[in-house]
Amino acid sequence: MVAIFSTMHAEIESELQRQVSRLEEEHSLPFKDMLSYHMGWSGEGAGEETTGKRIRPLLLLLTTASCGGDWAKGLPAAAAVELVHNFSLVHDDIQDNSPKRRGRPTVWVKWGSPMAINVGDALFVMSNLALTDLGDDIPAERRLQTVQILQRTCLDLTRGQFLDMSFEKRNDVRVEDYWLMVTGKTASLLSACCHIGAILGNADESTEEAYRSFGHFLGLAFQVQDDILGIWGDENVIGKSTASDLIERKKSLPVLVGLSKKGAFADFWNNNQITTDNVEDVAKLLATESAYTYTHDIAKQMTDLAINSLREADPQGEAGDALMDLADKLLHRNT
Amino acid sequence: MVAIFSTMHAEIESELQRQVSRLEEEHSLPFKDMLSYHMGWSGEGAGEETTGKRIRPLLLLLTTASCGGDWAKGLPAAAAVELVHNFSLVHDDIQDNSPKRRGRPTVWVKWGSPMAINVGDALFVMSNLALTDLGDDIPAERRLQTVQILQRTCLDLTRGQFLDMSFEKRNDVRVEDYWLMVTGKTASLLSACCHIGAILGNADESTEEAYRSFGHFLGLAFQVQDDILGIWGDENVIGKSTASDLIERKKSLPVLVGLSKKGAFADFWNNNQITTDNVEDVAKLLATESAYTYTHDIAKQMTDLAINSLREADPQGEAGDALMDLADKLLHRNT
Repeated sequence: MVAIFSTMHAEIESELQRQVSRLEEEHSLPFKDMLSYHMGWSGEGAGEETTGKRIRPLLLLLTTASCGGDWAKGLPAAAAVELVHNFSLVHDDIQDNSPKRRGRPTVWVKWGSPMAINVGDALFVMSNLALTDLGDDIPAERRLQTVQILQRTCLDLTRGQFLDMSFEKRNDVRVEDYWLMVTGKTASLLSACCHIGAILGNADESTEEAYRSFGHFLGLAFQVQDDILGIWGDENVIGKSTASDLIERKKSLPVLVGLSKKGAFADFWNNNQITTDNVEDVAKLLATESAYTYTHDIAKQMTDLAINSLREADPQGEAGDALMDLADKLLHRNT
Repeated sequence: MVAIFSTMHAEIESELQRQVSRLEEEHSLPFKDMLSYHMGWSGEGAGEETTGKRIRPLLLLLTTASCGGDWAKGLPAAAAVELVHNFSLVHDDIQDNSPKRRGRPTVWVKWGSPMAINVGDALFVMSNLALTDLGDDIPAERRLQTVQILQRTCLDLTRGQFLDMSFEKRNDVRVEDYWLMVTGKTASLLSACCHIGAILGNADESTEEAYRSFGHFLGLAFQVQDDILGIWGDENVIGKSTASDLIERKKSLPVLVGLSKKGAFADFWNNNQITTDNVEDVAKLLATESAYTYTHDIAKQMTDLAINSLREADPQGEAGDALMDLADKLLHRNT
């Protein structure tokens, strides 16, 4: 199982490097360096820690292989989904004014926002170009289908991003708005990875749908867990102040649930700043209003839906085991 | 000739509106409004003046029709090239800190840079989605080819944008760097319009190449003219201070030619600010160092190359006449 992960990981990395090498001409080398830096390949501290886990391309390739397909043929598509993810990270960091990403200064901090906007744009263009590298042995109609799925997902991403940014200024955000937002920002791309993976694995329609659904619920479960960890997680385990979501007044699921109760938490939230001094008490207050158990139950429901969809998809062979293993890690993490 | 222009123009506008209506759901309506505003359909002063001339989609459709193809089938591709153009304008305006576009406040001025980045991203996604709307009667392989051409063009755009932004800080920009930059920023998309138009018109390979080349030189000629007008144009005719390019220290072709002479102009440029008070004298100084005649000759060469390529392409019928007419207008403008 470890073998297939590391083989795929190495192949994903070289395919990504091949895609980014489209900017290899002399006059655009400083531009390529900005992309390489963000991808984690160069600059201070470059290494495994700075590239990220490449979960999306792994999901795609494992799905293809679990359907009995030749995963190596899916490598351009795997690069495409990772490039989409990274395009959105570069633009997110500008939009959120985030100074750090994977422990290093963000692209906009190093080269300014105008350059960083362009770096994100180039990563997005490269994701589209990567898809056009899928081989002729995959019928043209299927290749076009992957283009369409990925682009619909990207529209979901921009829609989710719009909602996320508008939430900051709105006082009327409801739990159902949250689901629209995270479906766009998180679930849509994970769903597309599994969907495209199944298409490239020549899955029949119902299997394709089961994988698509697995990715969707995996994304939702992952996001809800992230929200829980962001308020009540263990600081030693996740390596950042777990309370930061409350201090940043992020309208995550537990907060929206708490606000909907219109009780002591809502009162406090509406009338006070949350600081490092009071954040632990606020987190406890939120938990007493059942936001913790409620959110935890939701995370469990989404996890069950993901696992059920994956079982329905019935992933085969070594890749199938690895996919189950990956899902399990993502769904039962404490970091 | 007027008939085909206005028929196409109306169809382009409704196709664009159809594409942007992908954001029609209730929760994303304020987001759609931002895109509609930029496209010139809504907000203060919306009307013909605010939509732009839609030159790129016109070029594409006229090319298809001039090859004897059914231009109506190319409408999704026409929308795609216009959406790419507008995506790049929205991001350009943020990058250049431009307060106005077509006489109105830019998107970032109205809604802030984070939202504007996302508006540009959504327009780009929509351009890709538009291409996937090309009908089944166009073979899938050809549709994929249009995706590839457009994406390569978009990579050229980001490369050109990178060069443009780096020129601001560089003192060693050469005339050949200028050609790389404007090929990416201007010529590549015009070339893609004609190239895709020819493909959708089922042109043979040499005709396709002639149209591609026409678009390329049309773009270069247009840009060089723009540079000339930006320094020596008639303020009454082009409606903005023609001297603004000098005041903004834009490294346009005449300036780079002037700097390469290492004469009085270069001396002045390197040691003085250019203001509304001295700009006329500086423009005259630049002209005496033959930058005017040189740049004018280049514009004429590029124009001739464009016209020759178009003649070689041998555009047919009413659309062919209209295409010649459009090229003539673009190449012999004084605005």
